[in-house]
Amino acid sequence: MTQLASSRAYSRGDVERVVRDVLVKHFAWAGGARSKPNPLVVNISARHVHLSPEHLEVLFGKGAQLEVQKELYQTGFFAAKQTVAVVGPRRKILPEVRVLGPCRGASQVELAFTDGISLGIELPVRCSGVHHDTPGAVLVGPKGVVELTAGVIRAERHVHMGPADLEYYGVKDGERMHLRVESRGCTTVFEDLLIRAGKNIKLEVHLDTDEGNAVNLERATRVDLVKPEPCACRHQ
Amino acid sequence: MTQLASSRAYSRGDVERVVRDVLVKHFAWAGGARSKPNPLVVNISARHVHLSPEHLEVLFGKGAQLEVQKELYQTGFFAAKQTVAVVGPRRKILPEVRVLGPCRGASQVELAFTDGISLGIELPVRCSGVHHDTPGAVLVGPKGVVELTAGVIRAERHVHMGPADLEYYGVKDGERMHLRVESRGCTTVFEDLLIRAGKNIKLEVHLDTDEGNAVNLERATRVDLVKPEPCACRHQ
Repeated sequence: MTQLASSRAYSRGDVERVVRDVLVKHFAWAGGARSKPNPLVVNISARHVHLSPEHLEVLFGKGAQLEVQKELYQTGFFAAKQTVAVVGPRRKILPEVRVLGPCRGASQVELAFTDGISLGIELPVRCSGVHHDTPGAVLVGPKGVVELTAGVIRAERHVHMGPADLEYYGVKDGERMHLRVESRGCTTVFEDLLIRAGKNIKLEVHLDTDEGNAVNLERATRVDLVKPEPCACRHQ
Repeated sequence: MTQLASSRAYSRGDVERVVRDVLVKHFAWAGGARSKPNPLVVNISARHVHLSPEHLEVLFGKGAQLEVQKELYQTGFFAAKQTVAVVGPRRKILPEVRVLGPCRGASQVELAFTDGISLGIELPVRCSGVHHDTPGAVLVGPKGVVELTAGVIRAERHVHMGPADLEYYGVKDGERMHLRVESRGCTTVFEDLLIRAGKNIKLEVHLDTDEGNAVNLERATRVDLVKPEPCACRHQ
């Protein structure tokens, strides 16, 4: 459209719009008016297990409590000292899978695709907590065994957001955004991260280890959340 | 620019351009005028080793020849029956890494990032054959040991193209394209695949296992090569 635009005189409205665009860009770059309310943190969720209180007692004994090994980035959540073995259908085993706390209503095993291959389980990509038509596995703890009939998933990549983040990016809970990761030789756009928003939630993207390794996340030079909108010119 | 465009009368040239665009899109979708000369094949390169003729003899004995286990998609290339052990700096080991044939001028070990973590080697992303400032490793075969001082890399993702593919996509050898992989819950755009063109080369993208697992390549529903051009409206 360059030729069309340049062959006509600009109106006062056109000029105002251009000036406004330039100012908005300037302030955004200078960390001014439109700067982010929170830093964008991208973390890898290594394979882990969530347990129901009942399963915790079966695996670790009557009255067992999860003990904090390390606080996670989201307030109130932690990696526990406890681990369990996850056993697949052909008796392949992941011997030490970390339990995350606190306990939940239903137990869930979150694995990367590579883990699924080594266990012999075809993993469905699911939002946390959505267990219909998902495979199970056997969990083995020091005091007992639990046979899960469902709940083994590859967690769908997602971004946690608080109210200020929703406003800044102009999105709503349950919508989706893309994550672009700049990394030497392996720059990648992960499309359609699910937005999971809550009042006291910190801005944080969760990828799995396959995704993190595909982009060498530790050495990434830039990360951006991008709203999945077609360029304006496509609407013409 | 929608408003600007709609507030003026269309010239004959504008209308012709719109009609041409619609026809081109129609024929592309219908597999007509602009259909691909070759199917887009995306393969995962699992970890492997290339050997120089000298190193082949050290590892497998005087006069050793690579034997074909399986032909690869590109004519003349093959996975050999031979494997070697790759030993990292802390004596961590990958016990059976496949050798690819035929032999090359310089030996090279191509690993996924995940392999690098298990070996304790920080892998640089490199185009095949570019070995300056790359780490080495020890190769162990049934008849001997080779200490590589360089040549251990994560191969830069790339696309092989023949002349008809270059023409179809409007690109040149050494340029870059994006690969978009549609896959349930893990659709991803891998940016900047290096184009490696040659006369008798088949159209084929090579990803590593981390990239392939990140998108569950086996279950992918669509793959597209995309020319990395900013949308036309960005130029205004």
